[in-house]
Amino acid sequence: MDLIIENASIITMDNNDSITHGSLVIEAGIIKHIGNIPKHLKKHPYMVINAEGNYLLPGFIQTHIHTGQTLFRGMVDDLELLDWLSRYIWPLEMAHNETSVYESARLSILEMISSGTTTFLDIGLVHHTESIIRALYESGIRGIICKMLMDKSESRHVPYESLDVSEAEIRYLFSKYHNLENGRIMIGIGPRFALSLREESLIRSAQLARELGIIITTHSSENIKEITEVRDQYKDSNISLLNKCGILSKNSVIAHCIWLEKKDFDILLESGASVAHCPGSNLKLGSGFAKIPEMLDYGINVTLGADGAPCNNNLSILNEIRLASLIHKPRIGPQKMDAKTVLKMATINGAKALGLEKQIGSIEVGKKADLIIISKKGAHINPIDNPYSAIVYSSNESDIKYVIVSGKIVYKDGIHFFWDSDEIVRRATEEKDKLLKRL
Amino acid sequence: MDLIIENASIITMDNNDSITHGSLVIEAGIIKHIGNIPKHLKKHPYMVINAEGNYLLPGFIQTHIHTGQTLFRGMVDDLELLDWLSRYIWPLEMAHNETSVYESARLSILEMISSGTTTFLDIGLVHHTESIIRALYESGIRGIICKMLMDKSESRHVPYESLDVSEAEIRYLFSKYHNLENGRIMIGIGPRFALSLREESLIRSAQLARELGIIITTHSSENIKEITEVRDQYKDSNISLLNKCGILSKNSVIAHCIWLEKKDFDILLESGASVAHCPGSNLKLGSGFAKIPEMLDYGINVTLGADGAPCNNNLSILNEIRLASLIHKPRIGPQKMDAKTVLKMATINGAKALGLEKQIGSIEVGKKADLIIISKKGAHINPIDNPYSAIVYSSNESDIKYVIVSGKIVYKDGIHFFWDSDEIVRRATEEKDKLLKRL
Repeated sequence: MDLIIENASIITMDNNDSITHGSLVIEAGIIKHIGNIPKHLKKHPYMVINAEGNYLLPGFIQTHIHTGQTLFRGMVDDLELLDWLSRYIWPLEMAHNETSVYESARLSILEMISSGTTTFLDIGLVHHTESIIRALYESGIRGIICKMLMDKSESRHVPYESLDVSEAEIRYLFSKYHNLENGRIMIGIGPRFALSLREESLIRSAQLARELGIIITTHSSENIKEITEVRDQYKDSNISLLNKCGILSKNSVIAHCIWLEKKDFDILLESGASVAHCPGSNLKLGSGFAKIPEMLDYGINVTLGADGAPCNNNLSILNEIRLASLIHKPRIGPQKMDAKTVLKMATINGAKALGLEKQIGSIEVGKKADLIIISKKGAHINPIDNPYSAIVYSSNESDIKYVIVSGKIVYKDGIHFFWDSDEIVRRATEEKDKLLKRL
Repeated sequence: MDLIIENASIITMDNNDSITHGSLVIEAGIIKHIGNIPKHLKKHPYMVINAEGNYLLPGFIQTHIHTGQTLFRGMVDDLELLDWLSRYIWPLEMAHNETSVYESARLSILEMISSGTTTFLDIGLVHHTESIIRALYESGIRGIICKMLMDKSESRHVPYESLDVSEAEIRYLFSKYHNLENGRIMIGIGPRFALSLREESLIRSAQLARELGIIITTHSSENIKEITEVRDQYKDSNISLLNKCGILSKNSVIAHCIWLEKKDFDILLESGASVAHCPGSNLKLGSGFAKIPEMLDYGINVTLGADGAPCNNNLSILNEIRLASLIHKPRIGPQKMDAKTVLKMATINGAKALGLEKQIGSIEVGKKADLIIISKKGAHINPIDNPYSAIVYSSNESDIKYVIVSGKIVYKDGIHFFWDSDEIVRRATEEKDKLLKRL
């Protein structure tokens, strides 16, 4: 059924930062009209949502997510990145099977939906990528699922797959799933980070992404020990290495980018690559403060992601929005990272990073109806002076009333339309217990 | 009616960090029994709450709140402390009347209740303190309401009252309200900060607090310009000045303490004063990062507060808990500020700061039944490995199921038992509009 959303305060996030009060007409999943409803449209049969007392926004876009890690939530707090990875996360990832990955992905997407995320980029796992795709397919929301690449391990406790096998699987996933459901399902490539691939494999992964025309994403410059190891091996900065390998382009999303050198700013800008800022994870692992205000001033496209449940420990972008606005102010001054700037990072900047800025990321006629309705009734958000401020600094997960993807309601007032939340939580916990026994 | 809470995962926050599964028996607002219910208690008529699938915790305690500022939420973002105060907050505070302060306080307490706060210390306003006390009285929760002192202004845009008048009102409020409702309502003294009182008035306010045996609270060392002005005037550190004036003792709570000198650590420790850490506000005003992990290691009692709606912009302690744990890790390492430490700051440390550690702050037989029930069913909190981690890093406001003060339910599943939330939001917005016209 087509959809009319009436009486909403529409925060478009378009180029003019338009905020308007009125209606949105959606036909076949596409935004057809914004403002007062023209007469000729009134004859058509529509489902009508009365959004009085609510904001209507483009759905949030997360550009760095590990759905495969959500079963490990709360299991490995208070550690630094490289310890956290080698002592816990890698062995845990290796203990996954098809079912546990599926339940981990379902739980992740469930949480992302109820906190307003309509599109995410998942850097994936080395194995069982199809389980994540299956969960995404069933969820009704939009995503790019990467197959993760790691071909450098010499230990049996580190995930490994030869690049030939990985490449074959990516070609298979691409042909079978890419752009399925009118583009709702997409495939990407996720070389984990410079230290987990051979140099020739970094180069090959970039070639493959170019050939298929798909997103490539990796971690870079998250931790001092990491960049020191990269420099020891390659005599260069991590970002420069990725660039030399061909990974940086307008189709690449680089997560973290905390420990950049001065030249890295130019390399990122010139390549057109986007940065995925993950403030919750960067704080919790003690990784550091990325120079996000400077990147934005420089013209680099910066986006947001919650990263993974064991290093956050949530997948709600509302946390990341708030943190991104707050944590840089003591260093750079309170004027920077204002609410509107950060809300762009969570919407239109995310769309640009994924090459989807003509389809999603703002409320404009012709774009896909990926939308969220946020209540402005709560005590914690009132009185309201500025809508950007209300959403960024005051709203919380309980304010998310509707989540709509391509014009279809997937979530309303705490209820998931396609999934039984309690059942998914129960199964995820069971799969976690089984996984720990396999470990 | 007396109360039994059954089948709960009880996180006691007692000295042994006990976590137990079972029941809690509450009679006349006091915790009588923890664990399996003894036979002889089963005859008594009780109301029973089945807390299966939930955590039972002591209610959260906030030690630095400005309920009088909540009408100004979102009106003054992106400014530094002294500009923020002099250009906006002080003129706004002066435009308050009896009704607007009452509505501001009601809205504040409404928000604090729904995010699990059962006790707060409000530094107050120079005028209309009784309006805040009235709101607290009606709310059903516990609080210390201070009358704020400011007697140094030479501008008509800065709140002012002579200390004689302020002292007379404090004596009146003390005799009329202090320890009302079996100690649920308490009165305190709030000299705003060193720069807003004459030195002799700082001394007199401390004498008055000692004489009456009540809490005194102030701001200190929040901002570099502030400590520079203090040093220019007094040739000393802000903390040392407060100490010389007699303000620091086990009955004092000092908010912020970001820009401390080395000797200030010793002064704070020896005096027994508590520190109120306000991470949200400290970030948003760009004030800086207080050395909280170092203070805790030093033995200083550190507590938490959301500060005010225009510098946060929420009053939910869940935000402060998460921020307090996260923001210090990049500087001090991810091992510090672990979940349990931070949860203590939000509970038993808060009770100690207010001299109430024998009454509240942990779940122990003989203590007042100030309790919250937090759901562990949500997708965003599961799977659960460690309860402290689940609450600190993963829970959000939607998980707060019950708020209980002295054995009385004040909030359940989004419903406030004593107040109509929509009506309070509506009236607060009206009073904000009227206040802006008076400005």
